[in-house]
Amino acid sequence: KMEHAMETMMFMFHKFAGDKGYLAKEDLRILMEKEFPVLLENQKESLTVDKIMKDLDECQDSRVGFQNFFKLTVKLTIACNDICNTHEEEGKE
Amino acid sequence: KMEHAMETMMFMFHKFAGDKGYLAKEDLRILMEKEFPVLLENQKESLTVDKIMKDLDECQDSRVGFQNFFKLTVKLTIACNDICNTHEEEGKE
Repeated sequence: KMEHAMETMMFMFHKFAGDKGYLAKEDLRILMEKEFPVLLENQKESLTVDKIMKDLDECQDSRVGFQNFFKLTVKLTIACNDICNTHEEEGKE
Repeated sequence: KMEHAMETMMFMFHKFAGDKGYLAKEDLRILMEKEFPVLLENQKESLTVDKIMKDLDECQDSRVGFQNFFKLTVKLTIACNDICNTHEEEGKE
């Protein structure tokens, strides 16, 4: 299962990055729309993508490589995990 | 797909961590055996698990929380991605 989840991450990056091997802002926008529709839904879309792009684009070259893309996934997953834990705690009270 | 992959990571952590909410060394060993059998196969198993545990156990309290667990997944995925890219490059030559 874990290996499959990791494969999915790699596959999705390469699917949206294409042969150039990195995500430009437009690629990131499409990826976010397709893969995290809920995230963009309740936020001002362009604002969110700009902010995320700035956050991931450490070298300021408007390119997001696999490692930085993975950081996005880490942040989102940890945020989701924290939310789940909070709901569980509330459920126990 | 991405959301599903992230869910899998969260689910797998909680499955092996149980109610205590963290992975002890034994949990990590079982997780590695079940989820990354190939990784342990061609290495001296106990050595590998000890090394990984030490690497993840930043607070030196023999507990691996979700964030540190996720670091393991990140490192493994990036390593796999680099290997795939190298194979692709070799294929093109």
